[in-house]
Amino acid sequence: MTTKYTYFDFRGLGESIRYLLRYAGIDFEDIRITFEEWPKLKPTTPFGQMPLYEEKGKTINQSLAIARYIAKKANLVGRNEWEDLEIDAIVDTINDIRQKVTENYFESNAEYKEYIKRGPLFKETLPYYFDRLEKIAKENLGYMAIGRLTWADFYFAAVASALTHFSGTDLLKDRPYLQTVKNRVESLPPIKKWIEVRPTSDF
Amino acid sequence: MTTKYTYFDFRGLGESIRYLLRYAGIDFEDIRITFEEWPKLKPTTPFGQMPLYEEKGKTINQSLAIARYIAKKANLVGRNEWEDLEIDAIVDTINDIRQKVTENYFESNAEYKEYIKRGPLFKETLPYYFDRLEKIAKENLGYMAIGRLTWADFYFAAVASALTHFSGTDLLKDRPYLQTVKNRVESLPPIKKWIEVRPTSDF
Repeated sequence: MTTKYTYFDFRGLGESIRYLLRYAGIDFEDIRITFEEWPKLKPTTPFGQMPLYEEKGKTINQSLAIARYIAKKANLVGRNEWEDLEIDAIVDTINDIRQKVTENYFESNAEYKEYIKRGPLFKETLPYYFDRLEKIAKENLGYMAIGRLTWADFYFAAVASALTHFSGTDLLKDRPYLQTVKNRVESLPPIKKWIEVRPTSDF
Repeated sequence: MTTKYTYFDFRGLGESIRYLLRYAGIDFEDIRITFEEWPKLKPTTPFGQMPLYEEKGKTINQSLAIARYIAKKANLVGRNEWEDLEIDAIVDTINDIRQKVTENYFESNAEYKEYIKRGPLFKETLPYYFDRLEKIAKENLGYMAIGRLTWADFYFAAVASALTHFSGTDLLKDRPYLQTVKNRVESLPPIKKWIEVRPTSDF
């Protein structure tokens, strides 16, 4: 049975898994759902969300859980349980800031959206997180965790470009170690090749 | 060096790790920070958040990453990578609904807080998640994943009581399989004993 990966027809939250699947050399069907198709598919999914991953006829949701699973196949995890803890912790931290920014981006109440934006999110929270992430990338020699390539780097690289779009700020400017992480992932041959051929989208 | 666990002096997001540490039989210092002490400690933490876990002099944040790490020591994880994926996915789903409810509870803008409450959160999102979680608990014979005891059950049991408090609704009423999950965890001898002696708090 074919391995299938289902997400919207953009990069967003789903792209890190596309990176990992390609890096792992897993043959999969890259299914892309349009906004028109989504309302029909949504009620058939486990919790009304994408991405979805299907293997041997079994389907599962939750982007980070799927990413961690593919990372194990790609040998992008730690060598021991503490290393995995460090990877998991930084991934969850990157996810925290991703969530805050995307929830604001997709907030439909214009007044509240501005209230968050004008409030702490853009002026305080984003710089706070990215300054600390830069420090961590420096300590880890241009990686997000444990001083070598892991799925945390793939997750960061994919999320960083989405957040730059959503926030309207170049979050990697003057943060050379985070830029190194992103460049490193995007220079890996399977990822470089994928970036050249992938469908274009705003984020 | 002593193993230390640092969180606020309530159960909240931190209690599932206290459960796991006790179930694993790990000797640890249960450090509880008051609201008065927190502003002083906050800038010294990795990302201004608790809980924090310290082992052999190394400190790390992120509740789910810590919980997964302790779960490995307690043999509360899967037998293979797909089982771990199933556990991770349901934990992240429980965490999604936990986040929505707690963020609303702690929202300081009264108008927006009501806008969310009156909107989809209480009337749609909470029942949507808990109905699906009940179905999953039924399919898994009174467990949250893979038909046997895992850290997903510990996470659910601890989160369910916090959410009942935050939402003001008994979310386990008429959901017997979710009630079974919670009862099972709370009946385990180390957890039962801990519940009897732990400090009291509203949530």
